Amino acid sequence: MSVGEQALSSELSAQVEDRRRAANAEALARLVGAEPVLVDVAPAGDVVPDMTPSTILTSGAPLEWDEYTGGQRRAVLYAAVYEGLATDAEDAEAAIRSGRVRVRTTQQHACIGSVAGIYTASMPVLVVRDEAHGNTAFCNLYEGESRHRLNYGSYGDEVVRGLRWLEHVMGPLLAEALRRSGPIRLKPLMARALRLGDELHSRNTAATLLLTRELTPAFLDLETTEHSSAARAVLEFLTRNEYAFLRVGMAAAKATADAAHGVPFSSVLTGMALNSREFAIRVSGLGDEWFRGLHPRLEGRFFEGFTADDAEWIGGESCVTETVGLGGFAQVCAPTLQAYQGGTTARMRENNEAMYAITVGEHPDFLLPPLDFRGAPVGIDLFAVLRTGVVPVIDGGLAGRDGGQIGAGVLRPDLDCFAAAADAYGARYSTG
Amino acid sequence: MSVGEQALSSELSAQVEDRRRAANAEALARLVGAEPVLVDVAPAGDVVPDMTPSTILTSGAPLEWDEYTGGQRRAVLYAAVYEGLATDAEDAEAAIRSGRVRVRTTQQHACIGSVAGIYTASMPVLVVRDEAHGNTAFCNLYEGESRHRLNYGSYGDEVVRGLRWLEHVMGPLLAEALRRSGPIRLKPLMARALRLGDELHSRNTAATLLLTRELTPAFLDLETTEHSSAARAVLEFLTRNEYAFLRVGMAAAKATADAAHGVPFSSVLTGMALNSREFAIRVSGLGDEWFRGLHPRLEGRFFEGFTADDAEWIGGESCVTETVGLGGFAQVCAPTLQAYQGGTTARMRENNEAMYAITVGEHPDFLLPPLDFRGAPVGIDLFAVLRTGVVPVIDGGLAGRDGGQIGAGVLRPDLDCFAAAADAYGARYSTG
Repeated sequence: MSVGEQALSSELSAQVEDRRRAANAEALARLVGAEPVLVDVAPAGDVVPDMTPSTILTSGAPLEWDEYTGGQRRAVLYAAVYEGLATDAEDAEAAIRSGRVRVRTTQQHACIGSVAGIYTASMPVLVVRDEAHGNTAFCNLYEGESRHRLNYGSYGDEVVRGLRWLEHVMGPLLAEALRRSGPIRLKPLMARALRLGDELHSRNTAATLLLTRELTPAFLDLETTEHSSAARAVLEFLTRNEYAFLRVGMAAAKATADAAHGVPFSSVLTGMALNSREFAIRVSGLGDEWFRGLHPRLEGRFFEGFTADDAEWIGGESCVTETVGLGGFAQVCAPTLQAYQGGTTARMRENNEAMYAITVGEHPDFLLPPLDFRGAPVGIDLFAVLRTGVVPVIDGGLAGRDGGQIGAGVLRPDLDCFAAAADAYGARYSTG
Repeated sequence: MSVGEQALSSELSAQVEDRRRAANAEALARLVGAEPVLVDVAPAGDVVPDMTPSTILTSGAPLEWDEYTGGQRRAVLYAAVYEGLATDAEDAEAAIRSGRVRVRTTQQHACIGSVAGIYTASMPVLVVRDEAHGNTAFCNLYEGESRHRLNYGSYGDEVVRGLRWLEHVMGPLLAEALRRSGPIRLKPLMARALRLGDELHSRNTAATLLLTRELTPAFLDLETTEHSSAARAVLEFLTRNEYAFLRVGMAAAKATADAAHGVPFSSVLTGMALNSREFAIRVSGLGDEWFRGLHPRLEGRFFEGFTADDAEWIGGESCVTETVGLGGFAQVCAPTLQAYQGGTTARMRENNEAMYAITVGEHPDFLLPPLDFRGAPVGIDLFAVLRTGVVPVIDGGLAGRDGGQIGAGVLRPDLDCFAAAADAYGARYSTG
C-alpha cells in the first residue's frame, strides 16, 4: 500500500470525503463548463502576464537553473540568443546566472508549452479566453515539421528563419484574420474534430482543417490588402502542417484546466507536465505546488533508425489535453493513430475505456462516436488513480537527443507523483 | 434453393468457374486500379456523350415513360419546364409522348444520379476521368440542403433559383478554379477521408473539407478577378453543405465501376441503381442489361414527424459508392453516422465485416483504420451473394412523398435481382 493510499483509506475522515466529493463535482463542472474562445494572436511580451523583455519561459514544474539538462537547457540558452539577450550560449549562461535573464516556467504565466515550451517576449502567442470563467491562457505557435526546432533544443539559421517567419508573417496575419472573422469558439470545433478522427493531442488533422475553414473567408478579405502574400503563405503552412491546431487546443485546454484550479478540497488534476528531470501533476485543491515523480514509460514505437537509447526528455505540457478529457482520453476516436504510434483498434479502445475508472465524470460536449457517443472521461481524480492503480493514458511524441521527434506512443506516468499529492492532501485537509 | 443458386451449383462447369474466377480478378484489378481525377466542370450539353438539348436523364434501370411514377415522374416533367422545353407539366407530358423531349437514363450516358438524378443540357456536371483506363464519368451538382429540390420532385421559384445559381455561379466558378488548380486526384483524397470519419456515401464531411482546401488557393487567385463574389459564395456553399462532396465521389465511383465493366465471364457487380419501380444491378460480364428486383428494405430511422407511410422511392444511384468499396462497405469508418441513421458502433462493424463474404478482394488504397487498416471489401460477386444470402449493405437516405428527405439508414436489397442475373449468367456462359 502506497503512502498515498494510506492517506486515502485511513487519514481522511468521512467529513473530508464529503467535502472532497462536492469539491470534485465543482471542479468537474468548471472543466466541462469552460468556453474557450480564440480571441487574438499577439507578441507574448504584449499580452502574457508578467512577461518582461528578458523573461524566458520553459515547460514543466519549476527547477533551479542548474537542474535543467540536455535539450531543454540548450533550448533556453538559444532562446536568449534568439531574443538578443545574449550573444551566444556561453553569454546566455552568464546572463541567466547574473539574473539579467530570468527563466520561469510557462504555467507560472498562464502559458502552456509544447516539448521544451520555449517562450520569449517577441514570440507571437495564441490568446484563448474562457468566456465562462473569465480567465485567459496562451500558447505559442507551431514551428512546423522541420526536425530542427528551438522547441527540441536545435538552433541555427533554419530555426531562426522559421521563428522570424512566425513573428513577422504568421502571427500578424492570424491576428488580422481574427480581427476580421471575430473570435472563434473552440469547444464546438473541437467536439466536431472528435467526429472526424482526431483525439486532439497526437492527431489534429480535422481540427486544423476546420480552423482553416473558419479563417478562409478572412484570408479572402486580406487578398486585396498588403497581407495578400502572407495569407497565401499561412494557408500553405496550415495545409502542410496538420498538427498546427495542437497549439490552439493546448491553449484551450490550459484555459479550461485553469478554470477548474483552486477549488478547496478537490483532488482533481488541473495539470500534468514534463521537464527534463520529472513528470509532475498539479491538483485543484492543493494550490500551485507541483507533485513530482519519475518520467513516464513509453508504450509505442520508435521511428525507423531510432531506439530507446536515442530518446531524451526535454519537457512537454501537451498532456494538458488529457487533463481535460482529450488525447488518450478520446483515443478511441482516432484509430488512424495506430499507423503513427502502434497498437490496435481494440487496444486503443481498452486504453480509452480504462480512463472512466479514474475520472469523476463524462464530458457532455466531447462525445466519442466509437463508444456510441458516450462522453469522454474527464476530471482525473488522484485518489481514484491510487485506488485502482490505473494511470492516465497520454498520447505523445518522444524527442531525440539530437533534436527532433524520434517516436510516438502512449506515455504512462508512475504512481509516485500521485502518492506525493495524496500525502499533501492528507496533510492539508485531515484534521485528526 | 433459388434459381440463381441452381445456376451456380449445377449449371456452371468447372471450366466456366475457372474463367469466372480469372475474370473477377481482372474486374477487381480494374476496380482498385482506377485513378479518378476531377478535370473539369461544364454544362452537360457540352460534355456528356449524346446529350442533346432536348434530352433529360433520370436515375435507374430504363423504364417506359408510363412506368415512371410519383416524384421521379414529376421531376422529369419539371426538368423539361426548367430547360425551356415545355411551358408546364402538361405540355411536358405531351412533349415526351411526341418524342420532342427524349427521356433517357443517366447510365446510358456515363452519368450517375442522386435520388431522381435529373440532368438537362444546361446543368453543370463534374467531369471525372479515370486516368488508368481512359474512360470518363459525370455527375451534376448538389442542389443544397433545402427540402425543396428538383431531384426530389419539387419545383417552384426556390428550386429554379437554386438551379440557376449552380448553372451561372457555382459551375463556372468551379471550372475556373480547376483550370487554375489543375486536375484533382480523387483516390488519395477519398482514402484520406476514410481516416477522417467519412464512409463517402452518407457522410462526406471530411472529403468536402479536403476538396475545399484543395480549391482554396485558386479561390484566393480569383479574389482579384471578376469571379471574386462567386468565390466567396461557393466557399460559403461548401462550408454550409458538407454533403457536397458526394457528387464528386459518385462521379469517381461511376468512372471506377465503368472501368471494371465489360469483362467477359466476370460476375462482379458494376452498378446498383434505383428507379421509382425497382432496384437493379449491372454485372461486368453481362453487358448493359440491368437485372431488376424489389425495392430494398430500410433498416434505420425516420426523421421526427415521419413514418414509413410518408416514404416514396423516386430513384437513386449513389449506391455506386458501395459498388466500389465505399459507403456501407466502409461504414466502420464513420461511427458518427449512428446519430443520423441509427444503429450502434458494434452493429456498423458487423455490417461492414459481413461484406468480406460477398466481395472478391480488399482495396489496397481504401484502408479502414477501425479494422486495423484492413482494405475495404470490394467487388461484389453476385454468386457469393446468392451462396451466402448476405446482401450488400447500402447507406442511404429515404425520400418523402412530398419531396425532401425523411429518413436514413441501411438499405438491404432483395435476392431477386441477383437470382435473375445468375440465370442470365448461366444462359450466356453455360455451354451444356
